[in-house]
Amino acid sequence: MAETFQLDPAFEASSVALGGLALCDVRLQNDARYPCIVLIPRSPNAREIEDLHPLNRPRLIDEIVLAGEAVRAVGAALGLPVEKLNVGALGNVTPQLHVHVVGRRAGDPAWPGPVWGNGEAVAYSPDQLATATAAARKALHL
Amino acid sequence: MAETFQLDPAFEASSVALGGLALCDVRLQNDARYPCIVLIPRSPNAREIEDLHPLNRPRLIDEIVLAGEAVRAVGAALGLPVEKLNVGALGNVTPQLHVHVVGRRAGDPAWPGPVWGNGEAVAYSPDQLATATAAARKALHL
Repeated sequence: MAETFQLDPAFEASSVALGGLALCDVRLQNDARYPCIVLIPRSPNAREIEDLHPLNRPRLIDEIVLAGEAVRAVGAALGLPVEKLNVGALGNVTPQLHVHVVGRRAGDPAWPGPVWGNGEAVAYSPDQLATATAAARKALHL
Repeated sequence: MAETFQLDPAFEASSVALGGLALCDVRLQNDARYPCIVLIPRSPNAREIEDLHPLNRPRLIDEIVLAGEAVRAVGAALGLPVEKLNVGALGNVTPQLHVHVVGRRAGDPAWPGPVWGNGEAVAYSPDQLATATAAARKALHL
């Protein structure tokens, strides 16, 4: 088992780095269907929330709340205002511990079901990606 | 808006009360396909995690970790050992803030997709329900 944190390459294929918070690497999911931020705690070998040191668990929930603000900011910047946040830590496919914070709206392509496993991602255009990452970084103070 | 906490009746139709932790009402989802605990913070009008008082957010994550232990205990008691936890706060259908902690195993009816929106719940038999609630309450110290 690795002693140092290494990001699973699956995240690099599906998302864009925004920076680092106290606990987590923060990435924007490259999917124009729903504004979505992925939080990956930099804890080597963590697969479950229970694997985080108890002092890091409150950090995770604080960063989930902050990511929610950023997801709302991305939605507003792209003209897709967020009506409901969905927060999920699944990891059935990519086991490295990560949390998705997703901005949902009535009528989005998966509403009211979950986004996970629903169809294929639609990559942002370069302009959309620039707008989305700028809005997210501002909200995250990154 | 209500000033006091009232459980959404939707939870009474789909789950069984296990008791109360410091922050949350705890219920066992009545679905024999996957051991699943539902945590409902007793915070009036909360829809999102951000609606919780900052002092209650660490309590929520601690109770999520404890619910994970209980879900593993239910799975073991029913002969469905848990291989991966899935944690989700969605609320697209039932907006009252709640968190599902689900015990997954490779080959379960929704694997590796999410359980939310996947088919219909299969109620526990009375014997299974007694076994599951006893195992969950023991793990939760309820």
